[in-house]
Amino acid sequence: MKHITTDICIVGAGPVGLFAVFEAGLLKMRCHVVDALPAVGGQLSEIYPKKPIYDIPGFPDILAGDLVKNLEKQIAPFHPTFTLGERVEDLEKQEDGSFIVRTVDGTKIACKVVVIAGGLGSFEPRKPAIENLEKYEGFGVTYMVRDPEHFRGKRVILAGGGDSALDWAIYLADICEELTLVHRGTTFRGAPESAEKVLKLAEEGKIQLILKSNITEVHGENELKAVTVMVDNTTPHLVDVDYFIPLFGLVPKLGPIENWGLELEKNAIKVNTEDYSTNVPGIYAIGDINTYPGKLKLILCGFHESALMAQSAYNIIYPDKKFVLKYTTVNGIQELQQ
Amino acid sequence: MKHITTDICIVGAGPVGLFAVFEAGLLKMRCHVVDALPAVGGQLSEIYPKKPIYDIPGFPDILAGDLVKNLEKQIAPFHPTFTLGERVEDLEKQEDGSFIVRTVDGTKIACKVVVIAGGLGSFEPRKPAIENLEKYEGFGVTYMVRDPEHFRGKRVILAGGGDSALDWAIYLADICEELTLVHRGTTFRGAPESAEKVLKLAEEGKIQLILKSNITEVHGENELKAVTVMVDNTTPHLVDVDYFIPLFGLVPKLGPIENWGLELEKNAIKVNTEDYSTNVPGIYAIGDINTYPGKLKLILCGFHESALMAQSAYNIIYPDKKFVLKYTTVNGIQELQQ
Ligand SMILES: Cc1cc2nc3c(=O)[nH]c(=O)nc-3n(C[C@H](O)[C@H](O)[C@H](O)COP(=O)(O)OP(=O)(O)OC[C@H]3O[C@@H](n4cnc5c(N)ncnc54)[C@H](O)[C@@H]3O)c2cc1C
Ligand SMILES: Cc1cc2nc3c(=O)[nH]c(=O)nc-3n(C[C@H](O)[C@H](O)[C@H](O)COP(=O)(O)OP(=O)(O)OC[C@H]3O[C@@H](n4cnc5c(N)ncnc54)[C@H](O)[C@@H]3O)c2cc1C
Repeated sequence: MKHITTDICIVGAGPVGLFAVFEAGLLKMRCHVVDALPAVGGQLSEIYPKKPIYDIPGFPDILAGDLVKNLEKQIAPFHPTFTLGERVEDLEKQEDGSFIVRTVDGTKIACKVVVIAGGLGSFEPRKPAIENLEKYEGFGVTYMVRDPEHFRGKRVILAGGGDSALDWAIYLADICEELTLVHRGTTFRGAPESAEKVLKLAEEGKIQLILKSNITEVHGENELKAVTVMVDNTTPHLVDVDYFIPLFGLVPKLGPIENWGLELEKNAIKVNTEDYSTNVPGIYAIGDINTYPGKLKLILCGFHESALMAQSAYNIIYPDKKFVLKYTTVNGIQELQQ
Repeated sequence: MKHITTDICIVGAGPVGLFAVFEAGLLKMRCHVVDALPAVGGQLSEIYPKKPIYDIPGFPDILAGDLVKNLEKQIAPFHPTFTLGERVEDLEKQEDGSFIVRTVDGTKIACKVVVIAGGLGSFEPRKPAIENLEKYEGFGVTYMVRDPEHFRGKRVILAGGGDSALDWAIYLADICEELTLVHRGTTFRGAPESAEKVLKLAEEGKIQLILKSNITEVHGENELKAVTVMVDNTTPHLVDVDYFIPLFGLVPKLGPIENWGLELEKNAIKVNTEDYSTNVPGIYAIGDINTYPGKLKLILCGFHESALMAQSAYNIIYPDKKFVLKYTTVNGIQELQQ
């Protein structure tokens, strides 16, 4: 449980949240950035790090991952601080107009301005539609492997056909007493090398592989005891297990942002295009998370929004100073000279 | 006198006008770009090509000239066409809603949409405050050396202390019968090497150098015959000349844009932030030339504006198609694959 004090708390470390650190930094405002994911870059890191983007101005093409690296380098002179792997749960406005931002793990960030750069929301595991599944969450059902050692000597069943199902199947094969991988298809979406390795481990008897099948039921009193695997869509097959780990990828969910008293429209936060402020003074929303007439969910639009946000936030953080636009070309970046 | 037909005529080849070609190209709209300057890049090429910019997102720093080169490369797949070195004088709306854009040299561009990316206006020579100077323009007074051969065997007086005064003094020393350079100071603002060369040519008697002086009067019946050089601010000195060329740099002037029936505010064109359209349907204004609540004259803002402009222009150029945002990462740039 950490307590942090800063000028601006940025919720979301996607490209737009990162660049907001730069625009704030130019105006001498310190930033703390929080993201539910363990790494920065938002959709670019989570969904398409190795794909080229063609519409970042000045780059005929750039890999999404490289754009994130460049942005990290660009903001480094301003020494932003980060809390990664923790979802922001709520914002509390203080009497003096400042905010306390709180994460799911209890980290508290005291700040004068909140900038929500939450993109499509925080990425959460896609859950299979199985009756009563939620009841077993934390009692045998989990959607993420945080510490593989936790599964040592246990009977585990994984479901999925992508990279994360394959990678964990390979990793856990040596750790679990019994490991089963259930996949609805016959070919895998994950890397071919990983798929081959899994098939080999299955031949060696280290993984029990059940293809063309789905898990349709979960059983147990208070804890998970067994699951029903529907083989070939026709034949139910009961498997005794200690853990069931569905690995069907991550989907973005607006999540807690819905409860912060902000005006929403179609899963996005309504903002004023003059400075991308929300209906709550001191809270701004930039990037994919906001909406306004003409809005395009593009990275370059979020960059513009962060520049206008920063000049407006400046009036809150330095109420006695007047904002004057200075060109970086003319004034340089003081922090770079130190 | 050329006649060109295109979808969008972009007035101004600064960074924002160039990037507009890209955003239009993504939506299959062809562009013709016109600029009064002989080269693309706007302020970046004209004022600070060798200086680093720090606030282009994704570039911790980039020389202004390199950003222009990158933008040229980025738009190349869309094969934009250019008319450079010609100022746009007027726009004429046709009955069918389309436009004829006309340059000072009579080039006509027929288009469905006009995008004004004119920055601070077109760069025009800074004129010294000398009574009746305009009267002699074209009759002995000129602000630009287009063809140096024009001055062979003539008596020429140059005024100024920057690079262009120094460079032309050096160049014309061998061409003119008599060459005089008048400068109000004792040191030059131009490159030290050029200043040294000019001093050497003066010693050799090839240039008559008059320092700490200004030209205060112009004389002649219909044509220029002589100028008065006020030496040391006190002593008038008459010099017989055929040509007087003041070289005091270029200043941006809104110029003809003022007369196009567009709503202006503080030397800028008022736009709607939904799509950066002006009060005249079919005419958009993006980049430094426009104004709206919160406007910042930054390159990255113009990039955003060009993206929203393009989606709106699309409705004019393809009235029967519905605009659907497609990510370049997902759809690529078809023109690149050809
Ligand atoms: C396949 C694909 C291709 C694309 N191609 C292009 C393209 O070519 N050009 C282009 O411009 N755009 C493209 N996009 C869109 C682009 O990725 C988004 O516009 C961009 O990621 C938006 O950036 P952002 O910073 O606003 O949000 P995001 O990148 O979504 O980042 C938001 C971050 O906020 C975090 N977050 C959300 N809620 C919370 C919370 N409560 N607590 C903590 N953290 C939270 C999330 O975990 C996430 O990391 C593409 C998108 C996809 C999926
Ligand atoms: C010294 C300096 C440093 C700067 N540093 C930065 C910085 O660090 N970051 C930043 O974001 N911005 C910076 N800027 C501002 C930046 O250069 C401008 O925001 C940018 O150039 C605007 O681009 P634009 O395409 O809108 O217009 P411009 O670059 O001004 O280009 C407009 C073009 O339109 C042409 N034009 C105008 N009228 C006509 C006409 N009637 N017919 C034909 N052509 C016409 C002009 O000739 C010109 O080439 C700086 C500016 C200066 C002067």
